[in-house]
Amino acid sequence: MHEPNPGRNMAAEIAAQPDVFADLLATRDTIAEVAARIEQRRPRFALLAARGSSDHAALYAKYLIEVLLQLPAGLVSPSTTTLYGAEPDLTDVLLLSVSQSGGSPDLVEVTESGRRRGALTVAVTNTADSPLNSAAELSVDVRAGQERAVAATKTYGATLLALYLLIDAVRGGSGASAANLPELARTTLDESARAVSEAANRYRFAERLVTTGRGYSSASAAEAALKLAETSYLSARAYSGADLLHGPVAAIDADTAVLALCSDGRGGDAMRDVLEAVHQRGADVCAIGSAAAQVRASHRVPVPACAEEVAPVLEILPVQRLALELALTRGVDPDNPRGLHKVTRTR
Amino acid sequence: MHEPNPGRNMAAEIAAQPDVFADLLATRDTIAEVAARIEQRRPRFALLAARGSSDHAALYAKYLIEVLLQLPAGLVSPSTTTLYGAEPDLTDVLLLSVSQSGGSPDLVEVTESGRRRGALTVAVTNTADSPLNSAAELSVDVRAGQERAVAATKTYGATLLALYLLIDAVRGGSGASAANLPELARTTLDESARAVSEAANRYRFAERLVTTGRGYSSASAAEAALKLAETSYLSARAYSGADLLHGPVAAIDADTAVLALCSDGRGGDAMRDVLEAVHQRGADVCAIGSAAAQVRASHRVPVPACAEEVAPVLEILPVQRLALELALTRGVDPDNPRGLHKVTRTR
Repeated sequence: MHEPNPGRNMAAEIAAQPDVFADLLATRDTIAEVAARIEQRRPRFALLAARGSSDHAALYAKYLIEVLLQLPAGLVSPSTTTLYGAEPDLTDVLLLSVSQSGGSPDLVEVTESGRRRGALTVAVTNTADSPLNSAAELSVDVRAGQERAVAATKTYGATLLALYLLIDAVRGGSGASAANLPELARTTLDESARAVSEAANRYRFAERLVTTGRGYSSASAAEAALKLAETSYLSARAYSGADLLHGPVAAIDADTAVLALCSDGRGGDAMRDVLEAVHQRGADVCAIGSAAAQVRASHRVPVPACAEEVAPVLEILPVQRLALELALTRGVDPDNPRGLHKVTRTR
Repeated sequence: MHEPNPGRNMAAEIAAQPDVFADLLATRDTIAEVAARIEQRRPRFALLAARGSSDHAALYAKYLIEVLLQLPAGLVSPSTTTLYGAEPDLTDVLLLSVSQSGGSPDLVEVTESGRRRGALTVAVTNTADSPLNSAAELSVDVRAGQERAVAATKTYGATLLALYLLIDAVRGGSGASAANLPELARTTLDESARAVSEAANRYRFAERLVTTGRGYSSASAAEAALKLAETSYLSARAYSGADLLHGPVAAIDADTAVLALCSDGRGGDAMRDVLEAVHQRGADVCAIGSAAAQVRASHRVPVPACAEEVAPVLEILPVQRLALELALTRGVDPDNPRGLHKVTRTR
């Protein structure tokens, strides 16, 4: 342990999110201007390009685009451009590139190439003067402030909220479902604290962890697995609740901890059958979310109710705290995960 | 162990693939007719719908569509339709629904809904009279014959080959890169047998396994993790080589077995840096593929060289054998994984 206060940055950055959300909501008008430009172009398809945590924010945006904008959407595989030189015609395509640093060379290349090929390119970053912002025609600044911990927390929450505000504004919304998120985020952190500490205690010696969620919460499940893997070195794997039943449920047994995201709404409702199957396999289920009380679970972490489409912004908060506390109880410093750098330079 | 010959079905179905590929190649003209219908409609965007192993075949098809057809493509999240009732305009969209059974209700619903909304719908199944075939306008039969083992093997290989033949035919190709795959598949099974048995021996007690690949081989890495999880109950997790460097590499250490797909071509070339980073973390790397000799690895499984875009059809063969042998050496029957059924009925 080379730092005097392990996890200090990560703890501070998780706790900053209610204020970060409030600051971001105050810039709604700026985001609405970008949304108006998107609306003018009337895109017919959306593509999302991202890596790491931002890829999970992009998955959330994919659901928002399909459900709220009724547009077909897909996640880009950057390597078809960067390795194989694909140059598809992207007329009528909205290309959203999501990256906290805005510095990943492959995303810059995908964005430049997409712009040349006719896409309306929009960068969503936490670094307003980044190469990605220069590459894109339009930009949204998620305004989370500098992030010191290597594990993304406040930039992830802020990116989710920025994407919600942007996509809701494209359909003419005023971000109403998000208006009280700063207050609800504060309540979430306060009211989940005890249950999170108990969960960190319970999973101190867990070796296998599966995360799962459906609908909008699929993104939270993916982010939870990554956060736990990169801070606590757990072997964590995410499955959409539906995919879990198509095979991986066989690998679940009494030695598996299952972190299930269960928020009020259709995604959370669809988790009941999934958790019934998981329960039959003897797994230990930790249910996180506003609908945690309605599913079969060994342990529950409460989250206040909110509109389903913004639940990922809240439900990830206790997950981030769990990753922090689990790392600390396992004696590792989550501010400095071994082998990781803040900007990853893949091509 | 309730079966007299555990793994008998899976072993036979893996071994059948050279013949399955030959039979499928003989129906190239039928596939080319479907391709001609697709070409006439000049789709501008492709969507792929699938679950489980078929979702990995769909990921392979996504790369083929982006690189060979130069069309933007995305994987469908069925729940935006089945849970949230999204009804996007799919004019000019090609919707490929991939399922060995053709019986998954969510894929049928996505296909019916896509067809109503203007998409050209194509079912790729191993069950010519399935509900999915009825739902779709056009169908491709992968002709692998009945699959008895719960873990998909020959249907996976045949689906990859059918997708290659279909997509190559849309661009006017004659499937030339695939012509010698039956013979190469036989060579692959023969020449990799010893290295596969050694790998099964080496990973008898492995608890953490990560699979990785780039480009076309990303799909093989995803399928490898699923196959090992569902037959050997291993905690296996797949990452694209690029994503691995964005966080999960922190969770890799000397107790992690890394299965790396390394085939000749741009995807395999890009794996060198990834495996250098993995090596620095002390992991045990098993490299599988025609470029296995060119990367840093503790163990290598050779595969004959072929065109990069069809390498996934060959490189998955030793992975399937490894899943089989690892299950057997761990005393479980891969023909009957606990908790799994052949058709999974998710919505």
